[in-house]
Amino acid sequence: MYVIDINCDMGESFGNYQLGADTEVLKYVTSANIACGFHAGDPATMKKTVRMALDENVGIGAHPGFQDLVGFGRREMQVSPEEAYDLIVYQIGALEAFVRSEGGRLQHVKPHGALFNMAAVDSMLARAVAEAVYNVDAELILFGLSGSELVKAGEEIGLRTASEVFSDRTYQQDGSLTSRRKPGALIENPDEAIAQVVRMVKDQKVKALNGPDIDICAHTVCIHGDGESALRFAEQITKTLNQENIEIKRIGDFL
Amino acid sequence: MYVIDINCDMGESFGNYQLGADTEVLKYVTSANIACGFHAGDPATMKKTVRMALDENVGIGAHPGFQDLVGFGRREMQVSPEEAYDLIVYQIGALEAFVRSEGGRLQHVKPHGALFNMAAVDSMLARAVAEAVYNVDAELILFGLSGSELVKAGEEIGLRTASEVFSDRTYQQDGSLTSRRKPGALIENPDEAIAQVVRMVKDQKVKALNGPDIDICAHTVCIHGDGESALRFAEQITKTLNQENIEIKRIGDFL
Amino acid sequence: MYVIDINCDMGESFGNYQLGADTEVLKYVTSANIACGFHAGDPATMKKTVRMALDENVGIGAHPGFQDLVGFGRREMQVSPEEAYDLIVYQIGALEAFVRSEGGRLQHVKPHGALFNMAAVDSMLARAVAEAVYNVDAELILFGLSGSELVKAGEEIGLRTASEVFSDRTYQQDGSLTSRRKPGALIENPDEAIAQVVRMVKDQKVKALNGPDIDICAHTVCIHGDGESALRFAEQITKTLNQENIEIKRIGDFL
Amino acid sequence: MYVIDINCDMGESFGNYQLGADTEVLKYVTSANIACGFHAGDPATMKKTVRMALDENVGIGAHPGFQDLVGFGRREMQVSPEEAYDLIVYQIGALEAFVRSEGGRLQHVKPHGALFNMAAVDSMLARAVAEAVYNVDAELILFGLSGSELVKAGEEIGLRTASEVFSDRTYQQDGSLTSRRKPGALIENPDEAIAQVVRMVKDQKVKALNGPDIDICAHTVCIHGDGESALRFAEQITKTLNQENIEIKRIGDFL
Repeated sequence: MYVIDINCDMGESFGNYQLGADTEVLKYVTSANIACGFHAGDPATMKKTVRMALDENVGIGAHPGFQDLVGFGRREMQVSPEEAYDLIVYQIGALEAFVRSEGGRLQHVKPHGALFNMAAVDSMLARAVAEAVYNVDAELILFGLSGSELVKAGEEIGLRTASEVFSDRTYQQDGSLTSRRKPGALIENPDEAIAQVVRMVKDQKVKALNGPDIDICAHTVCIHGDGESALRFAEQITKTLNQENIEIKRIGDFL
Repeated sequence: MYVIDINCDMGESFGNYQLGADTEVLKYVTSANIACGFHAGDPATMKKTVRMALDENVGIGAHPGFQDLVGFGRREMQVSPEEAYDLIVYQIGALEAFVRSEGGRLQHVKPHGALFNMAAVDSMLARAVAEAVYNVDAELILFGLSGSELVKAGEEIGLRTASEVFSDRTYQQDGSLTSRRKPGALIENPDEAIAQVVRMVKDQKVKALNGPDIDICAHTVCIHGDGESALRFAEQITKTLNQENIEIKRIGDFL
Repeated sequence: MYVIDINCDMGESFGNYQLGADTEVLKYVTSANIACGFHAGDPATMKKTVRMALDENVGIGAHPGFQDLVGFGRREMQVSPEEAYDLIVYQIGALEAFVRSEGGRLQHVKPHGALFNMAAVDSMLARAVAEAVYNVDAELILFGLSGSELVKAGEEIGLRTASEVFSDRTYQQDGSLTSRRKPGALIENPDEAIAQVVRMVKDQKVKALNGPDIDICAHTVCIHGDGESALRFAEQITKTLNQENIEIKRIGDFL
Repeated sequence: MYVIDINCDMGESFGNYQLGADTEVLKYVTSANIACGFHAGDPATMKKTVRMALDENVGIGAHPGFQDLVGFGRREMQVSPEEAYDLIVYQIGALEAFVRSEGGRLQHVKPHGALFNMAAVDSMLARAVAEAVYNVDAELILFGLSGSELVKAGEEIGLRTASEVFSDRTYQQDGSLTSRRKPGALIENPDEAIAQVVRMVKDQKVKALNGPDIDICAHTVCIHGDGESALRFAEQITKTLNQENIEIKRIGDFL
């Protein structure tokens, strides 16, 4: 029997601004990455989202990002490893307080956006992120791009790590994602996207764009949480994974 | 033998901006109220201040305030009790993560500025603040103005509470502080200020401005942390309290 | 022939967050109040909204608010008149630069949310707002609640003022709006709401809630910009005003 | 007779946080670059600094930076040219409103920190900055590093440009500043620093670090505004420039 976790970014509303279909998407995911107020989210949204995730028995993760609300944490910022460490500790703590006060327990940490991408390739930054997570709570699971510096740093420091794969993105021969700015970056056909995930789980392989198969580790797959097609895709991938004998399970329950 | 805690607001620097003489003042206080990034403070400052307080064996408190950096959390904001609850949970969590990752344990929570003043007189707001503290960690000590709604709310919910007194402020007959906008609000003579504290500790009395003695409870006294006169005052009050057989002790060690 | 301006709050999106149906609503209004980045809006949204308003020949106003993005500028903040002056000057300038750089000219200023409400009843605050507007550009039109301190302050300083009325809110005998927290505050029937506006324009009267008619001045009426019912209401009030021989015209063209 | 402008960054205080010796430094400079609230400064500080600069007859410039208060605008952010355009327009406008309302006229624009450095080498970004300045007011003078892409972009679009030189930094053979992270970046001897400026003005040459003389254009020299040594340096460079028959004059009066 195979197993995979499905994760999704959540709690990205802010004040008067609503984003995402969190209530609906929570029914399809096993882990929720909840924004912590820097790139998205605010205290009220965090509390509400944590409450909903606990009610649905979904694993809760902190989703710390750069302090760039207007850029949604998607713009690279030249932070030092120490600055990254500090902003990760801060944001994990803020979210963890809501989880604890609602009677739950934090499961994982997944850096957001540009921070996630930078920590995938910058070993110093990856090390700082892993240390921040470890120092706050050594039991937390660190999410990182499969094969990335972040996963390596997490393992080196002694954290459990979850290798994340993407269904709708193509891969390069070095295991990185094809940049969104390049042709062929996205897999737009849902059937192909899901087939890629199934193969990554069962065979631990993915075909590189214009290249050979490469090895990949798939503990968790990221799905989108916004829009109707996201919900349809969530339903479809759930159905197919079930049919393929791939159990969908909270990462904290099998890693 | 009498006993009192001395507390001071700390960690109020922000990025490139330096504020306060934290290193020096830490030698005179037993409890530090550390800003949590909303009205002052930033992740790097929080980590550094927590580290210094632990090194000096000073009790660490979260000092959550309104999200009003330009106003330093001193301007009243019309927040709902639920909004107050949320911002308190968030900020306690953020600070607590630094305390934990540095190997310490959070001792107390003291709301800052306008939030402190509003929670002193608004019972709904006080209740929300007390609940936030309790739900994050029922072992935390809640600081509030002696005789305030906040202290009452803390006691009702089952928290240990620290009644705070001020050395350089005069009191009204109802136990509130004389507004800074009114004449006679400040006690500018350090000897008088210290004598007021000594009497509050030993006799549990303070003379109301233009009025009779009133009852007061003095678990902790707040001193300022900025400027040379603040350091001189810290030294002087320490010396006098010692001479008066009032032990200066961390609130968590005697409450 | 009667005349009225129709205004609507716009440009309230922020970064990744979309709000309002600005493109559609612009077809029904003659004046747009554009958020300036403090309570809503960001530089990109401001530029885009200014461009759209100019293309639709709609009068452009700055819509300055409190620096409280998470509260959308709707929470009262205890600002001094001088602080209000400063934040008004800042925000008018920021928006005006986009208007100028896009080849237009700023028409008016309407304070937002809690600032609007506070300046309606606080004469010192109203004076500060009016001075800010006047000192930036004495040709600007100041929007204020009909009969408010803000309108008075604007007139005293020598600004043209636009008295604003609300279609879907009831009035008290003193000319203030019935608080949203009280029963009867809202007029939910669109026909009644529009009839109230027609009467305010033609007869300069409005019936106070549970009371007699009061005098009112109606230069401009505020409509909502979010949701399908808002668009239907915009269409309906436009049609009725036309039928009632009330010309809908940009405030700057008839005041 | 030779001539040069002396500029300094100002208005970098924020709320309760004080930075810089603006009052004193204003006596030595002919142009002030005033922070606009994104990387430093706030509305009250902007108004006060503008007022002081006007009283001292110092040319006023907008000093727009990245929206990164905690990083003081010194961290590179991956902004698009369009985002840079928008944040420049916004900040120029905000400052210009204070200048106008105080009865003055904006003289120049100098991008701050990381934005200044990035626009020195990135021609697309430089173009966007120059367009923003031009579109707000084509009469404004654009400050850029001597020989930089920003100066080129300003000239191409038709702006007057001021080539800025540094007294206490060494230059590379390509005309760029030696990175602060490399040895020899700083000229710590004030006499040498001032001699470098004198030579840049008189001979339009500067010796590259470990290399030959290179051509340089020196319209304005940047001095620091914080600390006692900054004030001493300001006094010293003023004295020496006078002795060397180099007139110190507001850039807007001779460019």
